[in-house]
Amino acid sequence: MTLRPRASAFIATSLDGFIARADGSLDWLDDAQFLIPEGEDCGYREYMASIDGLVIGRHTYERVLTFDPWPYGHTPVYVLSHAPVSVPPTLVGSVHSVQGTPAALVARLGQQGTRHLYVDGGQTIQGFLRAGLLDEITITVVPILLGAGRPLFGPLPHDVDLTLMRSRAYEFGFVQSTYRIDTTD
Amino acid sequence: MTLRPRASAFIATSLDGFIARADGSLDWLDDAQFLIPEGEDCGYREYMASIDGLVIGRHTYERVLTFDPWPYGHTPVYVLSHAPVSVPPTLVGSVHSVQGTPAALVARLGQQGTRHLYVDGGQTIQGFLRAGLLDEITITVVPILLGAGRPLFGPLPHDVDLTLMRSRAYEFGFVQSTYRIDTTD
Repeated sequence: MTLRPRASAFIATSLDGFIARADGSLDWLDDAQFLIPEGEDCGYREYMASIDGLVIGRHTYERVLTFDPWPYGHTPVYVLSHAPVSVPPTLVGSVHSVQGTPAALVARLGQQGTRHLYVDGGQTIQGFLRAGLLDEITITVVPILLGAGRPLFGPLPHDVDLTLMRSRAYEFGFVQSTYRIDTTD
Repeated sequence: MTLRPRASAFIATSLDGFIARADGSLDWLDDAQFLIPEGEDCGYREYMASIDGLVIGRHTYERVLTFDPWPYGHTPVYVLSHAPVSVPPTLVGSVHSVQGTPAALVARLGQQGTRHLYVDGGQTIQGFLRAGLLDEITITVVPILLGAGRPLFGPLPHDVDLTLMRSRAYEFGFVQSTYRIDTTD
């Protein structure tokens, strides 16, 4: 038997729970970067060093494609979407277009030896949560209310109990909390 | 001139930002009480000692009316609603049915000498926020996802910038953060 990879999310939200404005823009998050002292990354590098694969949806993929340089280096990235996405030549080998369920992807990656999967993007995180496949989530709350936008969380088939693993307030006003999720498998 | 009272909120939410289920039930919050050690009140008594008036909406009023004993003692309670609510004889003198805007209520209470107003209930908190009249909010995040329910926050006319005043993680898994709100007046 193969073990399924651990799956976790590491994401910033507004205090009212949005990860982006309704049009996808992240201007509020870019502005918040100015609050952060030089050299502080709120644990992102350490987290990235702990993962050996990423799952994102089409929205996140298309946004990240506009970044220069590609932020994920040679870490395998699985773009889980209803229809295949196109992969630019420079990213062939790193980016894999995948269709199917989170469960099928996770089973396949377990067979390939993936140990810790970073699940990113609202739709993809919600899909993993609904499937009982997200093991941990780290939320960094930015001190702003947006009033509207793309929510981190969505409908669930039932309550999901969480265990707080750690929480930290940064002097520049972010609050970062990590929860273990009682998954169903 | 009279000063307007300071207005603040002190409220618990699920990690996905709900203060009650869609039908208003708080079973998940009642269950969470069992996590809390005897004698721990997460700062509620201290907060209550700092306020000299409460504003709630009709939903919250009708729920609190079912509590025995009445939890607010002799602190004046203003029920801000579109239509007048009926006040039982035992609460005449403590509970005041009020129509009008948050701004009008706050102006009136300022003239009466109220210094610190506790604003409770999702609709009422949202109304004060939209009017730029909420000065501070303390949110106690309970480690559960509900997937649906009555949200703490709602639409806003513009972004609202916040300043984190303090944040505390309790060993039983609650995270309580207090934000100062940059109000418009």
